[in-house]
Amino acid sequence: MTHAELRPEARCLRLTWPDGSQNDFPFLWLRDNCASNRHPFTEERIFDLLSVPEDIAPVSTTVEADALRVDWPDGGPVSRFALDWLHANRPGKRAEDPGAVPREAWRGNLTAEALPRADATALMTDDAALAAWMRATRATGLSIVQGLPDDPQAGQDVARRISFLRETNFGVTFEVISKPDPNNSAYTADALPLHSDLPNQELPPGIQFLHCLANNAEGGDSVFADGLALAEDLAEADPDAFAVLSTVAVPFRFHDRDCDLRHRQKVLTLDSDGRFSEICWSNHLAAPLDMAPDTIRAYYRAWRALAALMRAPRYLLNLRLEAGEMAVFDNRRILHGRSAFDPSTGQRHLIGCYVDRAEFDSRLRVLARAGH
Amino acid sequence: MTHAELRPEARCLRLTWPDGSQNDFPFLWLRDNCASNRHPFTEERIFDLLSVPEDIAPVSTTVEADALRVDWPDGGPVSRFALDWLHANRPGKRAEDPGAVPREAWRGNLTAEALPRADATALMTDDAALAAWMRATRATGLSIVQGLPDDPQAGQDVARRISFLRETNFGVTFEVISKPDPNNSAYTADALPLHSDLPNQELPPGIQFLHCLANNAEGGDSVFADGLALAEDLAEADPDAFAVLSTVAVPFRFHDRDCDLRHRQKVLTLDSDGRFSEICWSNHLAAPLDMAPDTIRAYYRAWRALAALMRAPRYLLNLRLEAGEMAVFDNRRILHGRSAFDPSTGQRHLIGCYVDRAEFDSRLRVLARAGH
Repeated sequence: MTHAELRPEARCLRLTWPDGSQNDFPFLWLRDNCASNRHPFTEERIFDLLSVPEDIAPVSTTVEADALRVDWPDGGPVSRFALDWLHANRPGKRAEDPGAVPREAWRGNLTAEALPRADATALMTDDAALAAWMRATRATGLSIVQGLPDDPQAGQDVARRISFLRETNFGVTFEVISKPDPNNSAYTADALPLHSDLPNQELPPGIQFLHCLANNAEGGDSVFADGLALAEDLAEADPDAFAVLSTVAVPFRFHDRDCDLRHRQKVLTLDSDGRFSEICWSNHLAAPLDMAPDTIRAYYRAWRALAALMRAPRYLLNLRLEAGEMAVFDNRRILHGRSAFDPSTGQRHLIGCYVDRAEFDSRLRVLARAGH
Repeated sequence: MTHAELRPEARCLRLTWPDGSQNDFPFLWLRDNCASNRHPFTEERIFDLLSVPEDIAPVSTTVEADALRVDWPDGGPVSRFALDWLHANRPGKRAEDPGAVPREAWRGNLTAEALPRADATALMTDDAALAAWMRATRATGLSIVQGLPDDPQAGQDVARRISFLRETNFGVTFEVISKPDPNNSAYTADALPLHSDLPNQELPPGIQFLHCLANNAEGGDSVFADGLALAEDLAEADPDAFAVLSTVAVPFRFHDRDCDLRHRQKVLTLDSDGRFSEICWSNHLAAPLDMAPDTIRAYYRAWRALAALMRAPRYLLNLRLEAGEMAVFDNRRILHGRSAFDPSTGQRHLIGCYVDRAEFDSRLRVLARAGH
């Protein structure tokens, strides 16, 4: 059974679990997490941490069945913590995240045929199908939704099953067609080299949805590459280049008649554990480099190393989007591009929108509550 | 006059300006920034940097009147750079940003009467008034818009003069009123201690707009504090606490029936130059700390130091919003709160919305093009 020991000299309570493992809970942490500190409706913390001394210590603690009882001095509350809750929230261990999905890097082992695919009707009506598809999309970074009706709303209807949409300067949704006076390369018939959208934003958009309404012009095939795989392989093949791209922030910019959106980003952003979190890659939106000349030279060398890597066919997943299909991918992980098309031979018409990572993962957590 | 010298050993061109100062331009930077690399309509870069060797060097360069001419080998283009452009974009110097506004920290020297104020009608009709108010808001972090009509749309109409709105889980706009089944402390009649909104988001909302439709209940006064001033003073008074709060990321979380939004944030985020960029401060949304026990103790000590600092009256700006007024503030710099109110004595009704920093600053740059 669980055993509790007060350790006043370390200002913590030590719990010894039935399996013999031990965890220390700082006294102030216990006081801060007393259930009486939470608002009865909102569950938000309404406790004033300065209302107790920093060196507060329990009067006594008792293990009672499945709970720990803590008595506080000076008219303080009696706190009761479920032992399961204490174990799940023990300091030094990140809380379980039902929205977390392990990522699977791909390089050549993923083909258009093997991509996660889901049926639009199922996604619109079945929460289990929605959750399974969302997890697969998060794992691979890329999936295809099939069977969309010939309706410009159909793609965003699927996206809105997840969350509200992330608006940008291109609108809540955007049409990828060849336009007469384009403000963006996507709105031409030109080839688009691999890129991520909007690195000129402080928070580049998260999950991107590209619903294909028509694709019967010559050309216009899609290509994708996994930034996670590229980052991992660059770190091994050229650690110096990886170090430069994950530490030097460079200016990105988009401007047209109505806006001038600028932000500095590193090409590779790592999380606090040093693992790949994000790639920002857009030659279109790269502003003139403004670092010191030596840093510019080092950056060009590193940039070219990664650019050369991503031309190796093993990283490229080619596919042709058909009308009624939608590509869904994490814009901050998966690079996308297309071949040029000839607008005189037919139509190529996509409608796009975004849902940010935060709302996507939130939806996964809520679906997980219902067992999905 | 400007003098150009090729320095092949350093792979750069050295320009000596008329005032005698010198700047080095890496050869590859010059090739990369050739005007022929830009799309004629979108102005986006369409150059393939791998199409030239890393050690490319000009055949010759010539200073011609107000421009630098660079001839490239192997059938490359002739590049012409305006000398003014080269000076403005010289490596090692950040490009001028017409959206940048110097921040003015305040601590006691700013009163409700001295706050920047603007008339709603002027903002809706006059770009010069709009730009002046936006710059004042960015400098102080806080301003008041007056003379709004008694219309729930009026506040967001002003915000939309700047940009589209940032949607969150609380909607495109949100009503701050006392609700029967609140999912958030803002929707009670309780006092709200100083906080920033939504630190549980990867990108907490930028500029916040709180339009007051009614405020005739007892209580419900507003209070603001400048996170920039607090961060500066904490760095001086308690460098250890500042170091902890600017390096240790802690979990924030908001959850209700429909969402479960989580993110780790540092309380103080610094920019790449080590200057204050952002404060995330919300006891409501703080999730149980999950760091190692020693880090938790250090964090609590640091958190309490900053919490104690922000209770000093010199940091607090108290004001009472009246119907027809709107508080506008940078949610990532300025903390806001309110005293409790008694809903049985009258009504307190605010409507809020957000515009992110990126779109706000973009609008300033576009207004600056017209001389505002």
